[in-house]
Amino acid sequence: MNHLLSLRDIDTSTWHALLEDAERLQGRRGIGPLPLAGRRFGMLMMNPSLRTRTSFEIACYDLGAHCVSLQPGAGLWDLETRDDVVMDGGAAEHVREAVGVLGRMVDALGVRAFAGLVDAQADLREPVLTAIARASSVPILNLESAVDHPHQGLADALTVRRRFGGRRVRVVIRWAPHVKPLPMAVPNAALYAFAREGHDVVVARPPECALDESVMASASELARAAGGTVTTHDDLERSTEGAHVVYAKSWGSAGLYGEPDANSAFLADHRSWIVDAAAMAAARPDAAFMHCLPVRRGLVVTPDVLESPTSLIFEQAAARLDVQKATLCHVVGAAVAPAAGAAPQASEETTC
Amino acid sequence: MNHLLSLRDIDTSTWHALLEDAERLQGRRGIGPLPLAGRRFGMLMMNPSLRTRTSFEIACYDLGAHCVSLQPGAGLWDLETRDDVVMDGGAAEHVREAVGVLGRMVDALGVRAFAGLVDAQADLREPVLTAIARASSVPILNLESAVDHPHQGLADALTVRRRFGGRRVRVVIRWAPHVKPLPMAVPNAALYAFAREGHDVVVARPPECALDESVMASASELARAAGGTVTTHDDLERSTEGAHVVYAKSWGSAGLYGEPDANSAFLADHRSWIVDAAAMAAARPDAAFMHCLPVRRGLVVTPDVLESPTSLIFEQAAARLDVQKATLCHVVGAAVAPAAGAAPQASEETTC
Amino acid sequence: MNHLLSLRDIDTSTWHALLEDAERLQGRRGIGPLPLAGRRFGMLMMNPSLRTRTSFEIACYDLGAHCVSLQPGAGLWDLETRDDVVMDGGAAEHVREAVGVLGRMVDALGVRAFAGLVDAQADLREPVLTAIARASSVPILNLESAVDHPHQGLADALTVRRRFGGRRVRVVIRWAPHVKPLPMAVPNAALYAFAREGHDVVVARPPECALDESVMASASELARAAGGTVTTHDDLERSTEGAHVVYAKSWGSAGLYGEPDANSAFLADHRSWIVDAAAMAAARPDAAFMHCLPVRRGLVVTPDVLESPTSLIFEQAAARLDVQKATLCHVVGAAVAPAAGAAPQASEETTC
Repeated sequence: MNHLLSLRDIDTSTWHALLEDAERLQGRRGIGPLPLAGRRFGMLMMNPSLRTRTSFEIACYDLGAHCVSLQPGAGLWDLETRDDVVMDGGAAEHVREAVGVLGRMVDALGVRAFAGLVDAQADLREPVLTAIARASSVPILNLESAVDHPHQGLADALTVRRRFGGRRVRVVIRWAPHVKPLPMAVPNAALYAFAREGHDVVVARPPECALDESVMASASELARAAGGTVTTHDDLERSTEGAHVVYAKSWGSAGLYGEPDANSAFLADHRSWIVDAAAMAAARPDAAFMHCLPVRRGLVVTPDVLESPTSLIFEQAAARLDVQKATLCHVVGAAVAPAAGAAPQASEETTC
Repeated sequence: MNHLLSLRDIDTSTWHALLEDAERLQGRRGIGPLPLAGRRFGMLMMNPSLRTRTSFEIACYDLGAHCVSLQPGAGLWDLETRDDVVMDGGAAEHVREAVGVLGRMVDALGVRAFAGLVDAQADLREPVLTAIARASSVPILNLESAVDHPHQGLADALTVRRRFGGRRVRVVIRWAPHVKPLPMAVPNAALYAFAREGHDVVVARPPECALDESVMASASELARAAGGTVTTHDDLERSTEGAHVVYAKSWGSAGLYGEPDANSAFLADHRSWIVDAAAMAAARPDAAFMHCLPVRRGLVVTPDVLESPTSLIFEQAAARLDVQKATLCHVVGAAVAPAAGAAPQASEETTC
Repeated sequence: MNHLLSLRDIDTSTWHALLEDAERLQGRRGIGPLPLAGRRFGMLMMNPSLRTRTSFEIACYDLGAHCVSLQPGAGLWDLETRDDVVMDGGAAEHVREAVGVLGRMVDALGVRAFAGLVDAQADLREPVLTAIARASSVPILNLESAVDHPHQGLADALTVRRRFGGRRVRVVIRWAPHVKPLPMAVPNAALYAFAREGHDVVVARPPECALDESVMASASELARAAGGTVTTHDDLERSTEGAHVVYAKSWGSAGLYGEPDANSAFLADHRSWIVDAAAMAAARPDAAFMHCLPVRRGLVVTPDVLESPTSLIFEQAAARLDVQKATLCHVVGAAVAPAAGAAPQASEETTC
């Protein structure tokens, strides 16, 4: 099954093919012979979404397909994901049936299922996404799971390729404060993505917010294979030194899961990790600022940095649309024709 | 007006035409000259939905039409359905206006409005669906009302046709336990559907869960006309004996409406009605298991039965898509061309 | 930027062009070469909607475009609109980023953002719509803001043109009671619209419900330029005298914002402002009744008036679809071809 579940697991040739296809598909806009005409996709969104939902739906339209957007709990039954339970609680349907049914109606299914943030080890096992992928007769696209966000990682890698012309650069993934603990799917995905690109990736965070060891180990291996490096430290003062890219993101401390008071105190103590003009000044001249959005102004980053000419936040969002098109074609096995700029052969018009 | 409101009331030729059209339309997938191109449909969903919403929306896309999905109370005003009330409560709009407006924008409107489960006699009068049908200037499709679910019944009949090659078979509609009283729309619809097909239909349920007498009488009449039979009993032990199909479904006891404690006690006393391997073993060899979904595992049916090779639950869901296409064409009066397998004449390509 | 934010500010030639284009686009229905093929639109709905959402989405389909419907707070983050706040509250994203992102994915964005009804002067400054328009890189369509509802005003003007063949008529915008204070966007828009059409517009309301002075002044100016008049009074008994059109609408008293008890008492005292048969009898023979919907029966208007042959409520709703098509074409700069009735030139087929 052609699932797209994790940036850790896909092979290197798929990684590069997706990014190259994203460039080729960028210009497609719902006109002419459409590569995914007649295809139907679904989105099962267990959590809120703006960019992901919009880019998925627009990508479908741009390529001729249709997308049904479904939200459990909002006009849709709550879904059970655990096996071997007597279903006498709130959930009216098991994902095995729900996903089995959807697989008879759509060609692939996008799924969003955030981390529980209660048990970090349980989150690492991706209980919901795994249950859904196992139950599905059609490919599953991960639209942010407990510990990965492949489309964000792809879009971020594409954005850096475009900005730096494919050069190897120094990317600092810098932890940022927040009002509540957030999942680690985005930093994990960014780490895998930049490692796969062979960049020099630095994870700068307070010691309490270390990413999982298995994630770090996998990223190091991916980086090594691609000719890059992964390092980590907790030195706020020197964190952006030499950076071509400052990639800000907040996430929670697994050690404080279930301790709201300690967590609030921790966050209050770490407000200085906000990315501001001084932090950017310590990086290289013209260093790019990146964030996956949504972002809390004045807490994660100052407005001046967010709105500066070197901020790539909107380029990242635009890239989401491009990579989404590539992954849609990938999971259903549609071949991708040369870039829109090139004059396509008549015979190639019906591929994507 | 070409409404599709109840399986009790449609005429026999329409019944058969819909099932034959469903077979013809099965292969259509949004490509080529599309029979419903330019048509717009709406769904007014007063209750949650997964299969119905998805199959309605995908059926529209497959045939070239567009579907707008609306949920009162979720980004939409609550709607009043009663006549002659001063509207100084919570509802901001009357269905007369809401449906009148939608009829200026869509060619037909699907409506979901579950039973109130307070007054069984009131539910039998279909207050919401009737109010909407009366107000509408375009055809209304019943997407599950208080006491009927025509698309489920059509899909179930089609599934049995496909499984048994059109033979007359013994179908046991067997009551199942649940955590709360559910509406009777599905058992009623299954009863009408299998009766119309001339099968030998048995309704096996505790005495407290007898279906309404008028429903049973109508079903018997439909069965007689089609050469089949309808019987009912409360003998759990012998309920699946000789069955080609065990059709499980839970529904509430009208006598216990409004008495939650008595109802809980009743359900706790009837857990043995779960469909398990023993119940299936008492049926014919290779007897099919059916359920409309969503289903609660371990309460209505055991997982082994649900996942057994003779379980038709996903075939039923797939058939929903096919019959939905047929009813969309039916209500707007679009003629249906021969099956996709046959080479269509150029002149027939633009019909559905 | 080609925003469509207020009927007060658009120029006269645009006003007339939109109404003429609405007539030309009326017949288009998703078939043939489509003028907005390949275009993507979004709707950001901060408040409930039936007509607006449906007409926007259907208009997109009819012209070949796709529409993504988004609701902050329902499967979407809550959005911050204020500048210079540290975002440590409930809102996870600022409209600057949300709208900036959407602008990379859609060609224009419809926005619904009702009045706050706390501070009338703040509402007049349109804080949310203004923040969004300022943040957007693509045109914004106002789908009802704090103090304007341009599409409703356009549809109402078109409905009166159609009913009275373009003649100058006397239109009474008559305040009506309600269970709670409603925003003034609709009466303001109707006032601007009928003033722009050169009608004789009368606003009849209790003194406590005077529309804002700046709104009245702008409307008077628009009327003068078009050869019409705007007057106001609080004489219930004589309010419909000589009216060709009785346009009913409830709105709140700015003086009672934040005083629920005083407001309830005020409304209870003004139940006699309901539009009934007697009020219509005092108007001209065959005077038309209009209301934008949703409407509360028995409170704003009696059912007999609402359902009388001279009631134009469904014509208004149908006109919403037509004007919506015109504004979609307008904001993206698509030229509009002659009416569907005329035989289009091949070369014009691809314009809208």
